[in-house]
Amino acid sequence: MSDYQAPLDEMRFALNAVADLGTIASLPGFEEATPDLAEAILEEAGKLAAEVLGPLNHAGDLAGSLFENGVVRTPAGFREAYGQYVESGWNALPFEPEYGGQGLPWTLAIAIQEMWNASNMSFALCPLLTQGAVELLQAHGSPEQKSTYLPKMVSGEWTGSMNLTESQAGSDVGAAKTRAVPENGHYLITGQKIFITYGEHDFADNIVHMVLARTPDAPAGTRGISLFIVPKFLVGDDGSLGQRNDLRCVSIEHKLGINASPTAVMAFGDNGGATGYLVGEENRGMEYMFTMMNNARLSVGVQGLAIADRAYQQALAYARERTQSRALGRADPAPAKIIQHPDVRRMLMTMKSQIEAMRGLVYYNSAALDLAKRHPDEATRKRTQSLVDVLIPITKAWCTDLGCEIASLGVQVHGGMGFIEETGAAQYYRDARIAPIYEGTNGIQALDLLGRKLLRDGGEAVHGLIAEMNTTLEDLGSMKGKEITAIRGALGEGIMTLEAASDYLLDTGKEEIERAAAGASPYLRLFGTVAGGWLLAKGAAAATRQLENGGDDNDPAFLQAKLVTGRFYAENIMPQVAGLISQIIAGADSTLALDEAWF
Amino acid sequence: MSDYQAPLDEMRFALNAVADLGTIASLPGFEEATPDLAEAILEEAGKLAAEVLGPLNHAGDLAGSLFENGVVRTPAGFREAYGQYVESGWNALPFEPEYGGQGLPWTLAIAIQEMWNASNMSFALCPLLTQGAVELLQAHGSPEQKSTYLPKMVSGEWTGSMNLTESQAGSDVGAAKTRAVPENGHYLITGQKIFITYGEHDFADNIVHMVLARTPDAPAGTRGISLFIVPKFLVGDDGSLGQRNDLRCVSIEHKLGINASPTAVMAFGDNGGATGYLVGEENRGMEYMFTMMNNARLSVGVQGLAIADRAYQQALAYARERTQSRALGRADPAPAKIIQHPDVRRMLMTMKSQIEAMRGLVYYNSAALDLAKRHPDEATRKRTQSLVDVLIPITKAWCTDLGCEIASLGVQVHGGMGFIEETGAAQYYRDARIAPIYEGTNGIQALDLLGRKLLRDGGEAVHGLIAEMNTTLEDLGSMKGKEITAIRGALGEGIMTLEAASDYLLDTGKEEIERAAAGASPYLRLFGTVAGGWLLAKGAAAATRQLENGGDDNDPAFLQAKLVTGRFYAENIMPQVAGLISQIIAGADSTLALDEAWF
Repeated sequence: MSDYQAPLDEMRFALNAVADLGTIASLPGFEEATPDLAEAILEEAGKLAAEVLGPLNHAGDLAGSLFENGVVRTPAGFREAYGQYVESGWNALPFEPEYGGQGLPWTLAIAIQEMWNASNMSFALCPLLTQGAVELLQAHGSPEQKSTYLPKMVSGEWTGSMNLTESQAGSDVGAAKTRAVPENGHYLITGQKIFITYGEHDFADNIVHMVLARTPDAPAGTRGISLFIVPKFLVGDDGSLGQRNDLRCVSIEHKLGINASPTAVMAFGDNGGATGYLVGEENRGMEYMFTMMNNARLSVGVQGLAIADRAYQQALAYARERTQSRALGRADPAPAKIIQHPDVRRMLMTMKSQIEAMRGLVYYNSAALDLAKRHPDEATRKRTQSLVDVLIPITKAWCTDLGCEIASLGVQVHGGMGFIEETGAAQYYRDARIAPIYEGTNGIQALDLLGRKLLRDGGEAVHGLIAEMNTTLEDLGSMKGKEITAIRGALGEGIMTLEAASDYLLDTGKEEIERAAAGASPYLRLFGTVAGGWLLAKGAAAATRQLENGGDDNDPAFLQAKLVTGRFYAENIMPQVAGLISQIIAGADSTLALDEAWF
Repeated sequence: MSDYQAPLDEMRFALNAVADLGTIASLPGFEEATPDLAEAILEEAGKLAAEVLGPLNHAGDLAGSLFENGVVRTPAGFREAYGQYVESGWNALPFEPEYGGQGLPWTLAIAIQEMWNASNMSFALCPLLTQGAVELLQAHGSPEQKSTYLPKMVSGEWTGSMNLTESQAGSDVGAAKTRAVPENGHYLITGQKIFITYGEHDFADNIVHMVLARTPDAPAGTRGISLFIVPKFLVGDDGSLGQRNDLRCVSIEHKLGINASPTAVMAFGDNGGATGYLVGEENRGMEYMFTMMNNARLSVGVQGLAIADRAYQQALAYARERTQSRALGRADPAPAKIIQHPDVRRMLMTMKSQIEAMRGLVYYNSAALDLAKRHPDEATRKRTQSLVDVLIPITKAWCTDLGCEIASLGVQVHGGMGFIEETGAAQYYRDARIAPIYEGTNGIQALDLLGRKLLRDGGEAVHGLIAEMNTTLEDLGSMKGKEITAIRGALGEGIMTLEAASDYLLDTGKEEIERAAAGASPYLRLFGTVAGGWLLAKGAAAATRQLENGGDDNDPAFLQAKLVTGRFYAENIMPQVAGLISQIIAGADSTLALDEAWF
């Protein structure tokens, strides 16, 4: 098993050339985010990932989290690593300074999240869940709730968990049945929640459960869901931990992957009701959830990118080291490193080019989030928010699907060794598989893209994003070279295809929502493929400019590699759009045609 | 977890309408294979799969095979199931009657293998390895070797194992270093082999290891490899088991999947040398291996089909039972069965249509094998053998890649439950992943298709297969209906694309083998996609004819479903060929361009 090393050069390039971190750092409130600080943060995070989190990943998978007598024990070293993570202030990085956060841009936070997830996805899930809880409280908590919970959660001393799913309420969160009955200024919560990531663990003194439940006379469905704070230990007025709340971990799941992270079944109110505190107003719980959803979905998209990069690093190391068979068409009869075999190169380039495309998309999406929140100009905020809304489901679903595909290629590069658990490649294949499922399945993301993001505003936001793509296309028009020519051609074709598919779905969606929905997933895939290609093209344009200037701070060979990788994507990945649009337009009828009895 | 049921209607349809079992059964030597016998065999095998093998699959995965003090214990129930399998005569089904075989067609044997692998892939691996050993001995063993080993191996009382791989010799089998030194009319074998499936187990009294090794003055590489019989227990002249041979299982692997099947590291000759018997002549071992390779690769292709079908059956059962959210665009506000959601239908149709395409390909390929072996006309034998040679790498690689993709869709249909091991869907995802690796990685298959099957005869065999496809296309020309129109259109387009890609590679391969090789895997994928669509089209033509005759023996709705499924494939899967040919033709340069240092 190879060690993880944060790909700092790649990250810097994507942050600067694609996400324009310079502009983000100049936004009001981000004054602290100087280039020097950003650089120091990237390097320090890279060290923690490489030296502490990465080495725990394989052993954590083997040991798994264990459940006994209501207590969860995480694998050896995880608790200590979490302590170090909190102590060094990493948890506070993106949150508001008012409660101890460092107030740094999401763009930077997301690059750091890539490192945590690549080095140890099971570990990284704990802060990810805390992040969601912090955002909910920042946005909707009362001043008292904020001052009680936020300082400890921002620092990471306490963690958060999200309690949405029940056995009958998965994608349909509104079907939740957990009850909340008012009593003495708080509520008594009763019900069972499943799939609660880090619902119980040994990292922290307290766990702040954010729980969706129904009050007695709540309307049916999503409009009757309220949001509650239900802490594991009640908190006294002085901030001290008091009584154990009436909630418990019933069991943890035996899963395909992310075995070091406990996935809990949580029972609330076995002994009369867990004490819960209403966040905001009754019946607005689902609405509140949307405030943290964009960042949470982005963070899951990062997992797809991260696990793909980990799989790539390991496959690459193996391909450079393993010798087998002579190289085709070369004079040397000695066994070659397998990276020299064209089919292995094809696999590695497929991994590498799509990883860079994903990294561009994830960082660009984060930058748009920062702009939408902080830009002084309201029109710019609004415009970038509409880009964010379109990009989020694409980032989540496209990156997590690719995460699985790339982890699978990573196994394949290893040949027989890939199937042996000691090698490590198999763990990424298993770990990656959850990301297309949680935080809204990728099918749900596709429906979100189609319904809320494309149809609801008549295509305005989508066409706004396409306009951004066309700007890059025009920019490439003034540049020369075979790589740029290939990239420009593929991007032009991709944009046209995306426009045609969008226009078709806009028409169809009005009258025949089922037919449009049959094409929702291929549409998201098409969108992701084109958006990824666009941001690689944006990087290629920047690389070309830097090469003209003698490389700026980058090694010219590094910049040249950006052009080659962009061209590979243009010629090997982008052509998939032809099949996808056929599927969207011609494929819907037969998707819906078969009688249910004949499946 | 749902139970496995052999899809007998689907199997019968593919056997009759696609593989033309009637013609196969009329070949000399297959007189026994009457329709009644075939039917009885399918039904009885279906019972064993459903009632004995299927129920052991999940528990076998959980328990795994265990290794202690040189002994392997398979999971509870496996040994008894194997006994029942042998006793009922299943192992002998396809082998020659001379040594106790039933001499039935491969076409039928392969349909049965689908059941064994779908119900319990770990179990099915043991007979698969014995099959390879039996074929080697049938073809190349001396009369004494045959009479000593074959009766017990054909019956399955003894099993076989294939010892090719060494740590430095994976895809490059010719790099094997295991030594064989002549002594007293036999050889002393010394060396270590890895990844030996069922190299040690508790199913049978003896294990007949087929071992590749080098004699002292053998030439380097594949031309210096000889094949030896190295039995676990030496066999006396009277057939009794004698001394334990100098070989042992060192350990078994901790794998991603197929955990019930032991994968052994085997040490030969720790105490001076294991007794081995040369098969055929020295230095011809690799040549001999080719005689069993076609059937072995076909049998691994079956695993892709089988695991996909198992994953589909389980996902379908879940989709029919699970309710979640109201159906889009329908009046009923109650939660719908998720099979009613368009995106779930899309996943199920993607699974179903490709499974039927794979089944068509696997059975057709088997029928071609039978024809090539048994047809009275030599020209027909030769022609069908050339089809077989082209089809084998496609069947192996395309079906096993799809096996992984479809098992992954099976996980996704289950949502969160798919990630929980108790559900069972995750096991198929793990088990499926080995099939693209072993018996020649799929990259090796693609190079075989390109080099040995396309380039070596200047495209003659490939064009012969394309001519078969065109016959079906012409046949469809006389038929009507929207399904047929869609299927015909896609098939025509697919064939043209396949021809163009083949012609391009024929040209390029002459001068620039590396560039051609960069497109080998996309070419195999393209070939598989078109071949699968062709055989679905063949089925659709047969269904149309049967519908005109009032259904023949089939339910008209079943036949209508064949048309809908064929159309789905035509409109949703076949369009992928556009991207694949771009990749083959335009993508090679950038696949090869990146400097190794910049990966």
